[in-house]
Amino acid sequence: MSILEQTLTKITTVDREAARKAQQRLDSLTKPPGSLGVLEDIIITLASITGNAIPRVDKKVVIIMAGDHGVTDEGVSPYPKEVTPQMVLNFLSGGAAINVLTRHAGGEIVCCDIGVATDIDHPGLLVRKIRYGTDNIAKGPAMSRQQAVKAIETGITVARDQIAKGAQLLATGEMGIGNTTASSAILGVYSSKDIKDIVGRGTGLDDKGLEKKAMVIERALRVNNPDPSDPIDVLSKVGGLEIAGLTGVILGAAANKAPVVIDGFISSAAALLASKLKPQSVQYMIASHVSEEPGHKIMLDLIGLYPMLHMKMRLGEGTGAALGFHIIDAATKIQAEMATFQSAGVSSSKKE
Amino acid sequence: MSILEQTLTKITTVDREAARKAQQRLDSLTKPPGSLGVLEDIIITLASITGNAIPRVDKKVVIIMAGDHGVTDEGVSPYPKEVTPQMVLNFLSGGAAINVLTRHAGGEIVCCDIGVATDIDHPGLLVRKIRYGTDNIAKGPAMSRQQAVKAIETGITVARDQIAKGAQLLATGEMGIGNTTASSAILGVYSSKDIKDIVGRGTGLDDKGLEKKAMVIERALRVNNPDPSDPIDVLSKVGGLEIAGLTGVILGAAANKAPVVIDGFISSAAALLASKLKPQSVQYMIASHVSEEPGHKIMLDLIGLYPMLHMKMRLGEGTGAALGFHIIDAATKIQAEMATFQSAGVSSSKKE
Repeated sequence: MSILEQTLTKITTVDREAARKAQQRLDSLTKPPGSLGVLEDIIITLASITGNAIPRVDKKVVIIMAGDHGVTDEGVSPYPKEVTPQMVLNFLSGGAAINVLTRHAGGEIVCCDIGVATDIDHPGLLVRKIRYGTDNIAKGPAMSRQQAVKAIETGITVARDQIAKGAQLLATGEMGIGNTTASSAILGVYSSKDIKDIVGRGTGLDDKGLEKKAMVIERALRVNNPDPSDPIDVLSKVGGLEIAGLTGVILGAAANKAPVVIDGFISSAAALLASKLKPQSVQYMIASHVSEEPGHKIMLDLIGLYPMLHMKMRLGEGTGAALGFHIIDAATKIQAEMATFQSAGVSSSKKE
Repeated sequence: MSILEQTLTKITTVDREAARKAQQRLDSLTKPPGSLGVLEDIIITLASITGNAIPRVDKKVVIIMAGDHGVTDEGVSPYPKEVTPQMVLNFLSGGAAINVLTRHAGGEIVCCDIGVATDIDHPGLLVRKIRYGTDNIAKGPAMSRQQAVKAIETGITVARDQIAKGAQLLATGEMGIGNTTASSAILGVYSSKDIKDIVGRGTGLDDKGLEKKAMVIERALRVNNPDPSDPIDVLSKVGGLEIAGLTGVILGAAANKAPVVIDGFISSAAALLASKLKPQSVQYMIASHVSEEPGHKIMLDLIGLYPMLHMKMRLGEGTGAALGFHIIDAATKIQAEMATFQSAGVSSSKKE
């Protein structure tokens, strides 16, 4: 069996018994049952994944996958491709938004070059380059099927290694000029909506640019005709190397029983494909924010995830997921530290 | 001039020049302009309040106002009135959700008895009792006009004292069985919607209880006929002591140029009244979450606030605001710590 096949086999349904025990404790705490909403949902999710009714996720790691996109030749982004390696260096020197937000949450960053179009020389970079960027999806497939599988397996391995080193909570991040175009194309395969209703401005396209982007995506889908029943076909034809890598990170987290926080539109495209490869993988996902990309909410609905942060963000990198770390920590502390009705002497029974 | 009049006079428009400088710095950071959404909005708000383009809000204090409601005689809450003092003691011994979440955010709690129906004996409690709970609003006014003013002025003084002791960011919290009923009545005065469309389940009413609660609120509005053009009239007739206190906390924050984070439905009722007493006070408010109370979103829209957290919470206490502390801290760190395009050598100019 390949690494991918082994991983898919290893992903199983979460521990319902631990979830039941976690619920029991939540209901003993000094608050009306269910009144902490998503904080309580997070506890149930973490408990069911870790098997611990009072779960902890102290060590948090954002895995950033970076890759380039041949489709930038079509002018789908206001930023030049050179920004991909420049921003990777920015991540490695600690000056990007994701660095600030991950530090703030007490987490760490792992940055992986899975397909940047140039070579980047930095001792902190994990180099797992599958190829130098994808081909232009408006003219043909992004990559070969074999490369897509290898990129997913790379993500699986990176996630597994981090979990082996002690990571208890992973998050997905990415960098790749042009990757909202690939993500929109992936969504276009699975959504019945018109492309013009799911395409967004990415990092800041104007109206004319937006119209062009929609046309490029429509062309990519027509030229490649990806098969929705075969997620690897979708990834290889209209996806991206960093998207494939993140699909792997999510599957790797699920296979190793670690929760994974899903960032924005691109990360969610990876999560959508993971959910198609193995529906049970969704049980290991925690959504963080809903971005300004109009397709993001549609994508989260397709996966079955609820975003707790409505920050109007559209940066990617993992920034929404890193913000979510705090909320997840808050949830774990609620379960660990709150008084019970009994210990605090508060009336829990409703009056007659 | 009374304390209230002095305070209203002292609330002025924020510093637009500091906001402009903050915007300039935000646009120099390595991210597409505006791509951090609400995080950037928060920076602009904090800069315009504090006059500092790189604002800091290290010392954070949640002010919890506790009071009882005579309208609980009508059976509008599934919990007995005794829970108000029990929960106040829980706050003071550190076991409630608000304690856990405030500690998690590195903040402090000040708990003030402004109108609990019984005496509470605890050295940590700030006792500023105006009266022992309100009267039943379904039968007459909650309190006298003079008491409402005194409760607002109490909140103003508590906020002022905390700011004098170094608080840089305040948040509103509350405890009072029955207070979603009073808050819904306040909203009913200012919203054109039917009461049945703005009333919610509070801490957990069933369908029958919900129907009864709507009828009680309609009766309270009919019996008291509060004057929308006179927010003190509204507060005294259908409000509550803790709501009046929080209106004062918000006005006190604004008068002393401190930002204040607004929690859920009850805190937002106080914010709505503050906005009616002095529209400029809204410039000092930061919304945190939108709760499960159907009226909350309507209330925030009336004030002109945007909630960033969608946590399906319905606990009150200040819990949503305390979660918001993290996000606000994250925003300040973005402004203070991110690299600029120039320092990081990243292309900021869009390609031709």
